[in-house]
Amino acid sequence: MVTLKQLAKELNVSISTVSKALNNSEEIGKDTAKRVKELAHLYNYKPNKVALSLKQNKTKTIGVIIPNILNYFLAKVLFGIEREATLQGYNIITCVSNESLEKEKESLQLLANGSVDGFILSVAKETQMKRETEHFNKTIRNGLPIVMFDRVAHDVMCDKVIVDDFESTYNATKRLLAEKRKHIVFITTVDNVSVGKLRERGYNKAISETTTHTPLVLKINTRNNTSKKVKSFLMKHKTIDGVVAADSASGIISINTAVNIGLKVPEDISVIGFGSKSVSYHSIPQLTTIRQHAKKIGSAAAQQLIKRLELKKGASLETSTKIIKTSLIKSKSTL
Amino acid sequence: MVTLKQLAKELNVSISTVSKALNNSEEIGKDTAKRVKELAHLYNYKPNKVALSLKQNKTKTIGVIIPNILNYFLAKVLFGIEREATLQGYNIITCVSNESLEKEKESLQLLANGSVDGFILSVAKETQMKRETEHFNKTIRNGLPIVMFDRVAHDVMCDKVIVDDFESTYNATKRLLAEKRKHIVFITTVDNVSVGKLRERGYNKAISETTTHTPLVLKINTRNNTSKKVKSFLMKHKTIDGVVAADSASGIISINTAVNIGLKVPEDISVIGFGSKSVSYHSIPQLTTIRQHAKKIGSAAAQQLIKRLELKKGASLETSTKIIKTSLIKSKSTL
Repeated sequence: MVTLKQLAKELNVSISTVSKALNNSEEIGKDTAKRVKELAHLYNYKPNKVALSLKQNKTKTIGVIIPNILNYFLAKVLFGIEREATLQGYNIITCVSNESLEKEKESLQLLANGSVDGFILSVAKETQMKRETEHFNKTIRNGLPIVMFDRVAHDVMCDKVIVDDFESTYNATKRLLAEKRKHIVFITTVDNVSVGKLRERGYNKAISETTTHTPLVLKINTRNNTSKKVKSFLMKHKTIDGVVAADSASGIISINTAVNIGLKVPEDISVIGFGSKSVSYHSIPQLTTIRQHAKKIGSAAAQQLIKRLELKKGASLETSTKIIKTSLIKSKSTL
Repeated sequence: MVTLKQLAKELNVSISTVSKALNNSEEIGKDTAKRVKELAHLYNYKPNKVALSLKQNKTKTIGVIIPNILNYFLAKVLFGIEREATLQGYNIITCVSNESLEKEKESLQLLANGSVDGFILSVAKETQMKRETEHFNKTIRNGLPIVMFDRVAHDVMCDKVIVDDFESTYNATKRLLAEKRKHIVFITTVDNVSVGKLRERGYNKAISETTTHTPLVLKINTRNNTSKKVKSFLMKHKTIDGVVAADSASGIISINTAVNIGLKVPEDISVIGFGSKSVSYHSIPQLTTIRQHAKKIGSAAAQQLIKRLELKKGASLETSTKIIKTSLIKSKSTL
């Protein structure tokens, strides 16, 4: 097992620099912090947890509450949280709220009872709809800080890590307009309420800023008939030459459907969709994707929480909202 | 909130029958148990947890340890565990071992410390490779039962829930042979060691039982070049008329690649792959899939653990191994 001392020697810096870099101290420059973390990751560096928690009288454990375990984006965020926490000597305990307010409350109670030092969570759908926040505020008042990510409760004073959903589809649509696409459709599943609306607005803004067309939105209710809906839509609207898809399946299905009805991608029609790298391989040509950097969201949330947990006695830190930008990764479904 | 009494009235059975059915008592017939559970699920029945745990001096919480949160199959198993546990009044706390023996040990320790009544877990790769079992045996000796699923440690005396990996590909290959396919290839990513080997053996057995051919296996190391590998393989072996894919991405990619090089699916070539329902929509024609019933695996594991946790004092229950069979769901990529 590698020690702080060995890391310091190899990097030619002091032990205290390594320690501070791993604990996200602002005293350490970005480049140095990055070098330290990369080497620590490479050597699979693990802090001595027993010694640490004895010294600090903390559990060194973070509670994570996610709304839906079948959502790949959330699973990747959790992966990012886990990796960052491990690097900094923290354990993770996860509960799933299943989009239920009651389960979310139960999970907070279950873990707040001495098992964890703080929480990272994404708010359940039911909680968002009912606008309940008291269980979050109570947790924070009891001395357990919360970092919210993706779906956040704006009224709660806590740290937040969010995605630029609006800008992501705005930029994707602009990209297709720059290809001289004349008739761009936005395909969405109505599933993700708040995030979905922001994405639709981004598309609408780009269209109305640049063209005189009416925005054209295809809403699909159930995932299982996406193929059929997209097919009949493309057959009916022969002038469609661009697709911005609000979820990963719709993007893949749009390409495969277009090819199936004899269109050339990207010559006749360009497609951009949300999705991870692995999903982009599910179509020929490969999908140009909007990447959300889920792991980065997770590590940013973990960094922020740990920074707060390790504040010196009496020190304070204002709550912050960090925006993790999406990237447009060009592949073969656009010009 | 619906009560046991109301459920009993609506079903026209006694309160004790409802309670026993929800607790998987063997005194209750299968049909009755099913009716009770369905109604309880419909009304979102929740046992009064505080009363229960006070009475029984238990945490009414199950610890789940999964090796990899980015694996969709495991996420679905977790979903199944969660659903069954909620129905029976249990909470779930999850830790991720990230395929590491050390993390697995840490997670067991972390949760065994009074947080949970027992464990459901799938063994980390590193633990399987090193054949370590002492941490499991110690946990069981300390009075916390374990149910293992999918990747199990055969040497540990505990309940297990497994999948018929061998039979699944044996049957899929037999199916293609029944279509008079002459030249069937098995495509696999070497990723999942033990499970992958069983699947390959199932294919081998079907081929050698039925034909005089040598089995033909395409092994792909990294996921990112699956498309390229499959394409050059199909271009080189023009006589291939059947594909059995050991993971979901390979199946989808095989169809899209075959279509891309001008083959007709299923006229020229049939494809069967592992995968969930949602993945099968990612290709045209849709993929005929081997379904693993992950949620059922999860609920079977939760049922078995809860049954053991709720044994009366002095009662005993032999350890059991339950096999959850896969199904072959015919779609349009086979004749």
